Amino acid sequence: MNISTLIGVAGCFGMVGLGIITGGSGLMTFYDLPSILIVVLGSYFGLFTFGSIPNTIGIFNTISLTFKTANFNETALIRQLMNMSEKARREGLLALEEMLDDLDDEFIKKGLRLVVDGTDAEIVRNLMETELGQMQERHVAKIKVVNMWGTLAPGLGMLGTVIGLIGMLKNLEDKSALGPNMAVALITTLYGSMVANLLMIPWSGKLQTMDATEAKVKEMAIEGVLSIQAGDNPRILGMKLLTYLNPLDRKTVEAEVLKD
Amino acid sequence: MNISTLIGVAGCFGMVGLGIITGGSGLMTFYDLPSILIVVLGSYFGLFTFGSIPNTIGIFNTISLTFKTANFNETALIRQLMNMSEKARREGLLALEEMLDDLDDEFIKKGLRLVVDGTDAEIVRNLMETELGQMQERHVAKIKVVNMWGTLAPGLGMLGTVIGLIGMLKNLEDKSALGPNMAVALITTLYGSMVANLLMIPWSGKLQTMDATEAKVKEMAIEGVLSIQAGDNPRILGMKLLTYLNPLDRKTVEAEVLKD
Amino acid sequence: MNISTLIGVAGCFGMVGLGIITGGSGLMTFYDLPSILIVVLGSYFGLFTFGSIPNTIGIFNTISLTFKTANFNETALIRQLMNMSEKARREGLLALEEMLDDLDDEFIKKGLRLVVDGTDAEIVRNLMETELGQMQERHVAKIKVVNMWGTLAPGLGMLGTVIGLIGMLKNLEDKSALGPNMAVALITTLYGSMVANLLMIPWSGKLQTMDATEAKVKEMAIEGVLSIQAGDNPRILGMKLLTYLNPLDRKTVEAEVLKD
Amino acid sequence: MNISTLIGVAGCFGMVGLGIITGGSGLMTFYDLPSILIVVLGSYFGLFTFGSIPNTIGIFNTISLTFKTANFNETALIRQLMNMSEKARREGLLALEEMLDDLDDEFIKKGLRLVVDGTDAEIVRNLMETELGQMQERHVAKIKVVNMWGTLAPGLGMLGTVIGLIGMLKNLEDKSALGPNMAVALITTLYGSMVANLLMIPWSGKLQTMDATEAKVKEMAIEGVLSIQAGDNPRILGMKLLTYLNPLDRKTVEAEVLKD
Amino acid sequence: MNISTLIGVAGCFGMVGLGIITGGSGLMTFYDLPSILIVVLGSYFGLFTFGSIPNTIGIFNTISLTFKTANFNETALIRQLMNMSEKARREGLLALEEMLDDLDDEFIKKGLRLVVDGTDAEIVRNLMETELGQMQERHVAKIKVVNMWGTLAPGLGMLGTVIGLIGMLKNLEDKSALGPNMAVALITTLYGSMVANLLMIPWSGKLQTMDATEAKVKEMAIEGVLSIQAGDNPRILGMKLLTYLNPLDRKTVEAEVLKD
Repeated sequence: MNISTLIGVAGCFGMVGLGIITGGSGLMTFYDLPSILIVVLGSYFGLFTFGSIPNTIGIFNTISLTFKTANFNETALIRQLMNMSEKARREGLLALEEMLDDLDDEFIKKGLRLVVDGTDAEIVRNLMETELGQMQERHVAKIKVVNMWGTLAPGLGMLGTVIGLIGMLKNLEDKSALGPNMAVALITTLYGSMVANLLMIPWSGKLQTMDATEAKVKEMAIEGVLSIQAGDNPRILGMKLLTYLNPLDRKTVEAEVLKD
Repeated sequence: MNISTLIGVAGCFGMVGLGIITGGSGLMTFYDLPSILIVVLGSYFGLFTFGSIPNTIGIFNTISLTFKTANFNETALIRQLMNMSEKARREGLLALEEMLDDLDDEFIKKGLRLVVDGTDAEIVRNLMETELGQMQERHVAKIKVVNMWGTLAPGLGMLGTVIGLIGMLKNLEDKSALGPNMAVALITTLYGSMVANLLMIPWSGKLQTMDATEAKVKEMAIEGVLSIQAGDNPRILGMKLLTYLNPLDRKTVEAEVLKD
Repeated sequence: MNISTLIGVAGCFGMVGLGIITGGSGLMTFYDLPSILIVVLGSYFGLFTFGSIPNTIGIFNTISLTFKTANFNETALIRQLMNMSEKARREGLLALEEMLDDLDDEFIKKGLRLVVDGTDAEIVRNLMETELGQMQERHVAKIKVVNMWGTLAPGLGMLGTVIGLIGMLKNLEDKSALGPNMAVALITTLYGSMVANLLMIPWSGKLQTMDATEAKVKEMAIEGVLSIQAGDNPRILGMKLLTYLNPLDRKTVEAEVLKD
Repeated sequence: MNISTLIGVAGCFGMVGLGIITGGSGLMTFYDLPSILIVVLGSYFGLFTFGSIPNTIGIFNTISLTFKTANFNETALIRQLMNMSEKARREGLLALEEMLDDLDDEFIKKGLRLVVDGTDAEIVRNLMETELGQMQERHVAKIKVVNMWGTLAPGLGMLGTVIGLIGMLKNLEDKSALGPNMAVALITTLYGSMVANLLMIPWSGKLQTMDATEAKVKEMAIEGVLSIQAGDNPRILGMKLLTYLNPLDRKTVEAEVLKD
Repeated sequence: MNISTLIGVAGCFGMVGLGIITGGSGLMTFYDLPSILIVVLGSYFGLFTFGSIPNTIGIFNTISLTFKTANFNETALIRQLMNMSEKARREGLLALEEMLDDLDDEFIKKGLRLVVDGTDAEIVRNLMETELGQMQERHVAKIKVVNMWGTLAPGLGMLGTVIGLIGMLKNLEDKSALGPNMAVALITTLYGSMVANLLMIPWSGKLQTMDATEAKVKEMAIEGVLSIQAGDNPRILGMKLLTYLNPLDRKTVEAEVLKD
């Protein structure tokens, strides 16, 4: 559970709700079904025009990722790669074969199998980097759909307000209805702004950070696999991988991993 | 038929229409011929100032592409390239000549003919990459026209509203006409926003994705042709090309292609 | 004559004019001299602050280029370069000297003279690419002035409207003048939007495309000159240069150039 | 103490306050608790949706950095590196070991220890550059949270104003309350604009400059460590490092460092 | 004296002034002290929050550069470098030593002294390019402060208008003061827009062009110094440097420099 996103979304809507109530209006003043149709559903359909069906229907899966904690366990990865590096140095690359089954990570597994099979280092790097690149492109395609929702929602919010204003202005006879009609017209702008500012813009940012973190861990894995293949000193490998950690985590692992 | 685009455009306009009707106005309230002249035709003419005649007249062809499914059939491509790779290894590069006529794809055909003719690998890569680059530049030129429509339409929408307001303000005598006149003035803003948000922005995004997918497939082809020329192991070629697929498609093909 | 730009500018203003007339106002309603002073002249003077005197005074020359058809005649260029390539292969590089005087293009002429003089290939490439790069920088400097007009004009339009509103609000006694005064205030916004949306934004886009096309032709020339110097196969040179053409033009030339 | 930031923040708010008072309103006119809830707290919660908990809670630490003077003391660094370079040339790289304990900077210390241990130059550069790159990525992650506050605050300001307007328009009976209600509605826009323009935008810019300066000093350190390992002339090292200083500082150090 | 900037600033303000007067208001209508405090001084203090004290106080020096003509005299530079190239070829690199004292340009002088001292070409290029890069970073830091003023001024202008509107709306009793109060509120928007559109945006653009020109001249110098060191043909050096000039200047110098 990613508590941060939960706090963020709950806090944001809570503050807006509190602001509304302390401002003296009821929350139901701000509920309007046609506005939801135009802004929320209208912009959601716009995503079909933009993206593929799987990415558009799957947007809720994409968004749900921001509520999950992605734990890549970089320190365990470092220990594992250093162990294998030592084993490979002592007993040869073939000795890694039996360790492959214990690996959970498909990416490292595939890379190491290539190494055990005696594939050329250049090809191993090429294959692993292409796979990382393709994974990032798939992520970007999904994040773009979230971004697009953040772009289209305020657009449709403004469009809905203009529609409301036109309807109101064409029929000005009942002066007393002027205010409420204009209020309704403004609700679409409110919805559009909420979808973008409270949800899509921060979600899209978090998804980008998550993708960057995953890419960093995969880069560590590539670095590790190639270093094992080259028969580098495990200590040097450890130092290389530790530079990817932030200073706090690094200190904890450093003592244990490098000083024995 | 690209159902996604169809759902998107129909759903978007449907939601806006439903929002209008549930909001109590008739759809005809939002029809205004002079506004169409200024916003839709005006911004279309602006595209002639920006782009070439073929790309501007051809914009409807460009847009119609978003309603078609581009099926590049990457898995068939992978099988084909692996078959040729094996044949070339067993029987030599010249043996590929007879297979060339069966190829539909002009791009791979041209590349392989160069290979069969014994052209230098550097030149083959250079020619294929230049051709890919020029194809992408032609696509970008066309997509830019779609983008420009999405930029000019809201510009002319705002311009039309200012024109309407000026006309109305110069002649304020008939107070009862004030509202309806202002409503008409706002219709251009509505049209500009619809052209941009419901159509051009998502279409342009989809066209960019389609171009990126086509470029990816062509990159796979270049990779394959050069790998065949270099006499690489067909298994390694298969692994290389499989990394371009998404994990789902990959699993299906992997079993069949690599394990035999 | 670049008919596209002509159609675009005429059509854009025509549509806006038609929209005004069908909307019931006269065209003269939208003429206001002080607004022209502030928006058009004011933003033009701003260009002097931004750019150099030659580029600012020369902006009308820059703009007039969008009304001219730039015919680079790529197919003639390909034929010419292939002829020279063949001649150089048969009779040696010095044999090209007599052909130099027939060349109109100063850029290729200069490159080939360097080749005939026996200059090192690396230096020839370096000189031709620096010249191409400097040409593009000069173009960009000019295009930036057009861009800046498109940025400053709406800025001054908004500024003029604020000025008009302030003047009007300070003096509210004559209620009947309120509407017309506000109308006049809005005319600067109209002018600013027209200068940007109908003129500068599309012109700047077209100028960028023209620069890119010219750069592409110059790149073809560099490719050709270096290929001639290296004594490459004229057929390979032809194939290289043909990849720069679009598929339609390519087909026409291909038959003639490669099959003889 | 970074006096510049202090002057900036105090001066900015002072000027706005002075403008308010000379304009005849009291400062308390602009205090409204619900508006603070929506804009300041609402956008702060939005940061949790976007960023990680440590970076969001730590944003006040990040911001407090702009009030501290970061003194990297480049001239002392240059003298130190030149001393070590001379010592290493005269007495060998191992002679540097005893100097390591006197170094405060962990980054150079780690680099030099690798050099003393006889690590390959390519690996030393690789490790130091990865560490610098990771440090910058951590900084960027923190700066992005500050940026995001500057994006969300005006968004919520606008949202709050729309909420206020809707509440007011729904209930137009008491005409005398119209003005004050609208005033309250506008206060959120004011808060949003202040958070962004007076605080987050300039702070984020200053943090970026601070990160760039730190990166520059670390680049000087990498340059120095590698130069010491390569046994370069200390004079050349001095000249290399001096080019990183601005002309004023350079002149002062140059006389002392290069001329003895 | 850079007449272009002078014409630009004078013309811009002149046109706006003329527009005001022909529009029937007096210029003093647009003078308001509290607005100047908020917009001009307020945004100036914001620069302290963003930048360093020297760059913020020195912004008037930075801006004053746009009124000065930077004459780099490229043609004299080309002649000088060609002379030295010939001398170095005939009499050896050491013969350049006596010419160094006549050089005004510190940058070339430093480069040539390194060459005379027999420094390695790679180090000479490295030192000169780092110095050029650092110069550009210092320029960019100063230009960013000008840019930031252009960003903050309209921000504070809008903020001031919101402050004015709130003050006015809270106190609606005196209906006759409504118009003038709103007029005053709008003056901050006017000031913000003027600071940005008439001054900072074009100035910042001109400063960027000036920096690019200076960098180009320094690149010519690096090219020249390295070419002299390598003992290249002075004619080739001349041709290389001439490609940096625009066609007009080139023709004038070409005749004189290359044909003798």
